[in-house]
Amino acid sequence: MSVQTLKGFRDFLPQNARKRQFVLDALKKVFESYGFEPLETPALEYEEILTGKYGDEGDKLMYRFEDNGKRKVAMRYDQTVPLARVIAQYQNEIPLPFKRYQIQNVWRAENTQKGRYREFLQVDADIVGTYSPLADAEIIAVSAKCLEKLGFKEFKILINDRANFRELSPKAVAIIDKLKKIGPSAVSEELRKNNFDENLLMKIKNKKVSKKIEEIANAVYKIDRSLKEQIIYESTLARGLDYYTELIFEVEVQDYGGGVVAGGGRYDNLIGMFSKRDIPAVGFSFGFDRLIEAMKQLNLFPNNLNGNEVLIAFADSELQKKAMEISAKLRNKGLNTEFYLEDVPLEKQLKYADKKNIAYVLIVNSNNLILKNMASGEQKKVILENLPDELR
Amino acid sequence: MSVQTLKGFRDFLPQNARKRQFVLDALKKVFESYGFEPLETPALEYEEILTGKYGDEGDKLMYRFEDNGKRKVAMRYDQTVPLARVIAQYQNEIPLPFKRYQIQNVWRAENTQKGRYREFLQVDADIVGTYSPLADAEIIAVSAKCLEKLGFKEFKILINDRANFRELSPKAVAIIDKLKKIGPSAVSEELRKNNFDENLLMKIKNKKVSKKIEEIANAVYKIDRSLKEQIIYESTLARGLDYYTELIFEVEVQDYGGGVVAGGGRYDNLIGMFSKRDIPAVGFSFGFDRLIEAMKQLNLFPNNLNGNEVLIAFADSELQKKAMEISAKLRNKGLNTEFYLEDVPLEKQLKYADKKNIAYVLIVNSNNLILKNMASGEQKKVILENLPDELR
Repeated sequence: MSVQTLKGFRDFLPQNARKRQFVLDALKKVFESYGFEPLETPALEYEEILTGKYGDEGDKLMYRFEDNGKRKVAMRYDQTVPLARVIAQYQNEIPLPFKRYQIQNVWRAENTQKGRYREFLQVDADIVGTYSPLADAEIIAVSAKCLEKLGFKEFKILINDRANFRELSPKAVAIIDKLKKIGPSAVSEELRKNNFDENLLMKIKNKKVSKKIEEIANAVYKIDRSLKEQIIYESTLARGLDYYTELIFEVEVQDYGGGVVAGGGRYDNLIGMFSKRDIPAVGFSFGFDRLIEAMKQLNLFPNNLNGNEVLIAFADSELQKKAMEISAKLRNKGLNTEFYLEDVPLEKQLKYADKKNIAYVLIVNSNNLILKNMASGEQKKVILENLPDELR
Repeated sequence: MSVQTLKGFRDFLPQNARKRQFVLDALKKVFESYGFEPLETPALEYEEILTGKYGDEGDKLMYRFEDNGKRKVAMRYDQTVPLARVIAQYQNEIPLPFKRYQIQNVWRAENTQKGRYREFLQVDADIVGTYSPLADAEIIAVSAKCLEKLGFKEFKILINDRANFRELSPKAVAIIDKLKKIGPSAVSEELRKNNFDENLLMKIKNKKVSKKIEEIANAVYKIDRSLKEQIIYESTLARGLDYYTELIFEVEVQDYGGGVVAGGGRYDNLIGMFSKRDIPAVGFSFGFDRLIEAMKQLNLFPNNLNGNEVLIAFADSELQKKAMEISAKLRNKGLNTEFYLEDVPLEKQLKYADKKNIAYVLIVNSNNLILKNMASGEQKKVILENLPDELR
């Protein structure tokens, strides 16, 4: 048997798991601060709920199987269709507008050669049940606030009205959508080859900002004036998915080349799919893996994600129980502490602290306590009572 | 098509999702305070990693299927076998002892008639790589600390040495394990029927506490003196699973009749399964759904899980934008606030606050601000600047 992780799937060892947790905690706080509420749906759904909702490609990439009870089931492919189901199923329990965030894994049998994962975390925030442009504004504002909270300083929010493309064929939109990847001349060339008006790109480029988008942008400035410089109208922004109906936006972080970290828009024809009526909605998603990658590249993670952590080390065997007791005492004072569980030489305890990225080691000697800063190597005598303050 | 949740699976709407989040945040904090580190493993594993590890029953209840690439895969059934895989796979990256917690869903095609779920959250904390009884003690102490942190005051920790059953057949152990459910006379009766020594139960009952268990208990008292009254030696405790090798324990919450909320022990023959060597381990799990249920029954959830939340309501249409601006201002001061996104009468806004369990509503009139306590109905004039302090 080969002991390995399934192809396209990942283990997250502590260092990475902590980074993910750090980002999630920050995002949840921002979502909650705007009155968004958490929702969780199951990993498995009846297959008929999911199939046909993501196009042929989606049906192909979906994990589907027959369960022990011969039910046809499918694994969560995104969080929008489950949201539509929830809205239909609990109409009387969920007050509209419903502002919800949902942070769960989704599964897609993607081509792993392209560096894609088959299990990845989706972070969605949506407002369901209102056409109000103030909802659009809030979605943009909350996405920006999340980035600010994580420490991103320079980012651009590109906005557009999907209506700019209303009269165009999907094929033409798909070509214009490549603008950033292949540049304007290649786009014009491809439009020509496909017998579209060769001035089409220029026409789209010259489209003035629509009244609706202007209204939304003005509302965003009322929520957060500092966003005035970050919001940029980009008439050629198409955002692939053709389910958007009006506002579309994407967020680009400066000095990160991995692509947009967030995107979203208004989609008024989707959430009502199981409710037999139109239910408007606007929302956005973070590309969670990109967010983590961008934070690593821009050095936005704090040095010590373990909290105020200190290892209580013992200079010799008889002092191990004392180290345990000191550890318990400090923990009760709010420090994250541990001691080495086996009776080993001090050197081995220090190595353990180093490998676990523990910032400080308190060395318990028979007649004093030495605090060692693991990064600088600096050591000094300390008094137990003063330790919590020293470490904060 | 029937729009419904898959049988045995659950949606968690905001009110319940928040309760779950509250408990998880508390548990993670306690785990981190003892130096436990987070681990995440994928929802899917190669089938051969999981099958045969949980007995015939496990293989039967496991969700297994062939993926698009004809790989035989299985959904996470517990978190111990994946931990064993991780330990084998990353030997050079993970320093031992490895103190890890893992909080992820597992999937089992259980009989739903018994009130069991097919998707449920597992909360595990384990220490891998040491035989030290101090590790056993820490596992007991951390489980107790979690309960204290959640507000449980009266609970018992029943401990025993699995070695008490070493000379018995699995059948005899299984009968004695029923003691709490069916009582001593029924157990004796069943032992007799199966041709076991009719004094067997009495013999087990009279077993004195082993040296090892005494040593562990004494170490627990050193970590947390208050546990002295809560730890009870129970020589007949068997804890079903036969993979335990020494310490076993269960935690019972007083006035909660739903069964033990936590349980664990030492299992030295399991984690090494993929590493081709013995790797000792001790750990425990919470029954997460029981924990939530017990907290509901004992009223341990705070009234306002939404944080310092206030809805900024507007008395008439022209004031909606002002409400939006006030909402943004208060949010920047650390309050969770929102305003109603549609232009509706005040009454409807109040209803929304009520349905969403928002504790306070700030009513923006053209010349004053009224703060309404939604629980008491009490209203008073306030000044914006004082609001953050008033609400805390």
